[in-house]
Amino acid sequence: MLGLICELAEYEKLGHEVVATESDLHAALFCEKPVAECIIAELDNAVIGFALFFHNFSTFVGKPGLYLEDLYVKPEFRGKGYGKKMLAHLANLAVQRGCGRFEWAVLDWNAPAIRFYQSLGAQMMETWKINRLTGEALLRLAAEAGD
Amino acid sequence: MLGLICELAEYEKLGHEVVATESDLHAALFCEKPVAECIIAELDNAVIGFALFFHNFSTFVGKPGLYLEDLYVKPEFRGKGYGKKMLAHLANLAVQRGCGRFEWAVLDWNAPAIRFYQSLGAQMMETWKINRLTGEALLRLAAEAGD
Repeated sequence: MLGLICELAEYEKLGHEVVATESDLHAALFCEKPVAECIIAELDNAVIGFALFFHNFSTFVGKPGLYLEDLYVKPEFRGKGYGKKMLAHLANLAVQRGCGRFEWAVLDWNAPAIRFYQSLGAQMMETWKINRLTGEALLRLAAEAGD
Repeated sequence: MLGLICELAEYEKLGHEVVATESDLHAALFCEKPVAECIIAELDNAVIGFALFFHNFSTFVGKPGLYLEDLYVKPEFRGKGYGKKMLAHLANLAVQRGCGRFEWAVLDWNAPAIRFYQSLGAQMMETWKINRLTGEALLRLAAEAGD
């Protein structure tokens, strides 16, 4: 899995951001209360991709959603519908689990992916931007917490 | 809580999107495996705001993150540092729980909020856009799932 994550990061030009270790993944996914779940796509017993997801929650809808963090198909197996098969599997899981939404993020320069998602009927949430606090800034704010 | 969610939705000009019921919130937050958690801010025994959050997961970091879905302070109590107190409490929770990131979304027209988040050292993830599949489109994709 870590190998696939690194391949994905390279494609996203974010290879330098991968600091995860095998033991991190083991701790998060194979514990009593996993924070995320993963599906592995296989073809003729060979791994060709993966998808990692977790549940989020919408206060307006009042229901959990399914959030797809990463979807990856190895380059040599792209354009054959395997990515869509994985998305359909997850959409079905979302419906089975009573989720009101199925969401994921896309890099705004990834035009082929955006076209594909729109063909599925996905809406781009243009007005929302993600803020991220990490490292020193996170510790600084945490230190201001009262009781 | 539902009252506060409706007030927040009105402020975000999204009042029409609230379909959550009290029993939805009860089912999601007060069950054996809650999908989300909530803090309520009180002043002199009166409720003045709330924050709802859950854990997400970064494959690159290999660690869970804390994702703040909603933060709301009633209008008459704004500008007094209560929102920041809640954010600091959550940042501290994130650090205590070993999270690598603390994230939340902001509407791109909400300039005062954006300025405030930047003063905390938050990074705006400009290149990422959220895709959302819901309603009929979600059911349509789900129906394509194989075994």
